[in-house]
Amino acid sequence: MTARATRVTVWNENVHETTQPEIAEIYPEGIHGAIAGGLRDILGDRVVVGTATLADAEHGLSEEVLAATDVLIWWGHIAHDQVAEEIVDRVQRHVLAGMGLVVLHSGHFSKPFIRLMGTTCSLAWRNDGDREVVWTVAPSHPIAAGVAMPLVLDRHETYGEFFDVPAPDELVFVSAHDGGEAFRSGMTFVRGRGRIFYFSPGDQAYPIYHYPQIQRVLANAAQWAHTPGERAIPEVRKVERRADR
Amino acid sequence: MTARATRVTVWNENVHETTQPEIAEIYPEGIHGAIAGGLRDILGDRVVVGTATLADAEHGLSEEVLAATDVLIWWGHIAHDQVAEEIVDRVQRHVLAGMGLVVLHSGHFSKPFIRLMGTTCSLAWRNDGDREVVWTVAPSHPIAAGVAMPLVLDRHETYGEFFDVPAPDELVFVSAHDGGEAFRSGMTFVRGRGRIFYFSPGDQAYPIYHYPQIQRVLANAAQWAHTPGERAIPEVRKVERRADR
Amino acid sequence: MTARATRVTVWNENVHETTQPEIAEIYPEGIHGAIAGGLRDILGDRVVVGTATLADAEHGLSEEVLAATDVLIWWGHIAHDQVAEEIVDRVQRHVLAGMGLVVLHSGHFSKPFIRLMGTTCSLAWRNDGDREVVWTVAPSHPIAAGVAMPLVLDRHETYGEFFDVPAPDELVFVSAHDGGEAFRSGMTFVRGRGRIFYFSPGDQAYPIYHYPQIQRVLANAAQWAHTPGERAIPEVRKVERRADR
Amino acid sequence: MTARATRVTVWNENVHETTQPEIAEIYPEGIHGAIAGGLRDILGDRVVVGTATLADAEHGLSEEVLAATDVLIWWGHIAHDQVAEEIVDRVQRHVLAGMGLVVLHSGHFSKPFIRLMGTTCSLAWRNDGDREVVWTVAPSHPIAAGVAMPLVLDRHETYGEFFDVPAPDELVFVSAHDGGEAFRSGMTFVRGRGRIFYFSPGDQAYPIYHYPQIQRVLANAAQWAHTPGERAIPEVRKVERRADR
Repeated sequence: MTARATRVTVWNENVHETTQPEIAEIYPEGIHGAIAGGLRDILGDRVVVGTATLADAEHGLSEEVLAATDVLIWWGHIAHDQVAEEIVDRVQRHVLAGMGLVVLHSGHFSKPFIRLMGTTCSLAWRNDGDREVVWTVAPSHPIAAGVAMPLVLDRHETYGEFFDVPAPDELVFVSAHDGGEAFRSGMTFVRGRGRIFYFSPGDQAYPIYHYPQIQRVLANAAQWAHTPGERAIPEVRKVERRADR
Repeated sequence: MTARATRVTVWNENVHETTQPEIAEIYPEGIHGAIAGGLRDILGDRVVVGTATLADAEHGLSEEVLAATDVLIWWGHIAHDQVAEEIVDRVQRHVLAGMGLVVLHSGHFSKPFIRLMGTTCSLAWRNDGDREVVWTVAPSHPIAAGVAMPLVLDRHETYGEFFDVPAPDELVFVSAHDGGEAFRSGMTFVRGRGRIFYFSPGDQAYPIYHYPQIQRVLANAAQWAHTPGERAIPEVRKVERRADR
Repeated sequence: MTARATRVTVWNENVHETTQPEIAEIYPEGIHGAIAGGLRDILGDRVVVGTATLADAEHGLSEEVLAATDVLIWWGHIAHDQVAEEIVDRVQRHVLAGMGLVVLHSGHFSKPFIRLMGTTCSLAWRNDGDREVVWTVAPSHPIAAGVAMPLVLDRHETYGEFFDVPAPDELVFVSAHDGGEAFRSGMTFVRGRGRIFYFSPGDQAYPIYHYPQIQRVLANAAQWAHTPGERAIPEVRKVERRADR
Repeated sequence: MTARATRVTVWNENVHETTQPEIAEIYPEGIHGAIAGGLRDILGDRVVVGTATLADAEHGLSEEVLAATDVLIWWGHIAHDQVAEEIVDRVQRHVLAGMGLVVLHSGHFSKPFIRLMGTTCSLAWRNDGDREVVWTVAPSHPIAAGVAMPLVLDRHETYGEFFDVPAPDELVFVSAHDGGEAFRSGMTFVRGRGRIFYFSPGDQAYPIYHYPQIQRVLANAAQWAHTPGERAIPEVRKVERRADR
């Protein structure tokens, strides 16, 4: 078996980078560019990476693009409400049919994530540049492979509980923030045939996606979320009675 | 502590009973009436039961009714699409804020359930009057207390996998059907502050809700799904940094 | 239904209190005495509390005592290896048959807990008197009812991940420690017919069990872990083929 | 990345085959031989398979063998009590340190499995040659990849609930038996750093391990249970306080 490369599309709202020079300085290629570069560096020919942004036609997420995407990575923050419902429907449908989805940081409030979770996805937050220490609680999980224990972010925005998502299928990471918050920072969910990973680092104001350790998590997540096989949304079906033996 | 009675609202589409005499014969008081009666018989003064149907104003689910409902039981089948989106929003909001929800049989395709699960909630089915045998796989779960092991339904519609819901928080019952299907027939989910129980019996064409054992499951579920305390939807909140000790 | 009172036995190694005056000063009635008192204060006539210690005959855990115990609370630390294997067998058997078990703090290394988990139950630790902040991540869980969010322990020993236990059935609390550790501090497990709750507060050198909030958690846990019904260990059984309908 | 081959050791009690001609006729190379052959056929150079039996020195499971085993497959039935405690300790230790374990059929009562589960692992059974229909309830799980839905065993022993194991991390398969039993037939558990898969087919009296579909499940399970990285049992460790930022 030669497993084919994982086709990743990195979606980024790309508003901070295009409107705030101080963010553009951190991410001259955009957050999507930094994430895409990290994936290519670590995974080499095991990955094919494309990018898409809010400003693109259909937000860069046409039916054709999604059909050719094994794993979609999603970063959004201040423009969630500008994402068209039609695109949200499409993303949800592809996830349920088998596309992987990696939701990052403030993407907790993105429309596709809220739709797939069925909850408010709300949380507590503050931004004081506290240190965040990320601990692996599932050491044999593929997403934690090769990740430092702990993984330290010197300065970061703080997210706190209660984070209103369903109990995850697997809890991979929990974080402690210097001000006293604990947070479930890495969680997996399966919805339909699609695998979802939520990872709470990184805020746009800190160079989180340039950290090699964070890139390692994203590379692992991209591979983990890739479900091989034909994409097929589960459908209701009337069946025939199986003949008795 | 004197725990107060659980306030249950039994919601029923009530279309089969009012349009098909053969169903009305099985359920002269409606499916909602049979369920309500069973709850009162078993729980006595530990329960206060009301009913609501599709034809009622606001489907009988006004803001006032839901605010005074600890647990909503939902039966629907052929009129899911007649349920107003506004009422679906309201039910979802109340569940996330702490109202319990018990979804029955073909309610797997009800709008509130699909909304809360985030998946298609599709499954396989056929209706050949097969025997269904329901097995408890969580013997110490409160919903299984006092329930026969196994619980046998002599004739019932058949539901089969794959049932497209998220992995449940707890799997309580699994069923075998004579034709060879297995089905996860009792599952719990927590969404927000609300507890949800899905239970796959009973189809309108069989007198399932007259079975004392089924009434026992519903009575247990009503008590289990009742979350005490103030109703409060989780909200995003900016917090202050906790002073260092 | 008049639910009868929950019969709790609080087991304590009781070695620190009888050999170290500074610990006896914190717990003049022993850790077991403090826990028992807290349960009685909060639960009143909904609980009947007994205590048992390592030095008692059969460690105070005779067959008769366990048969009359709905929930066993366990605190141990420096004398785990003095607990007789026969008593460990007995505790395990009663848990699998339906007795609840609440394991506290350094009880993570107690023989009954290791036996029931099947893992090493090891963890990281240090004792610098850091503040521990305990966050509820399952707000509708009965064990979290009425518990402050967050619950703050001004000074406590620090436990850290990786804590080698199976993924819990439910994660109720996660803690952050000022030095940067996060820890899954409240977890439930069902084994056989028995419900188990692990709670990582409190070290003997701090007056943790005098905190009203901690007493609230233990009172909630005692009620949650109480499985009604006959005690019966699951047994292998040859069955007869069910007659076809 | 060239992932190296998974090193599998298939352990079989090998008592039925050497004492009952009718079983030897079904499995002339032993159950271990049939399983090993199936793995080689499907996985080719992605697997290196060895075998070991009860009669071998140290049951064929020396420290050296286990250290060089990524995944241990276990079949046992009538000689569980002849497995030396020392070997059970060794298997448990290796699993907690990262070795995968696939436990088959009557291996539910094997010493290593009982040790790792912490429960009785008892179940209901009868042997009437009923048809068993195995349904996938986690369609995107790697162990279900390429497995027929459903997978039909024309004749097999019947296992029934309650199966006394902890709630699994993932439920992959559920079975229906013609006589009315449902059974959780494929379940995953993580213990320490080791991944465990329990799969209830196949009894020695039926040629289950010759079924290509069953071989596919075992090949998938061998790959899934293979945790890369250094083998290391979790250990308690005293840590230093992390310097404040």
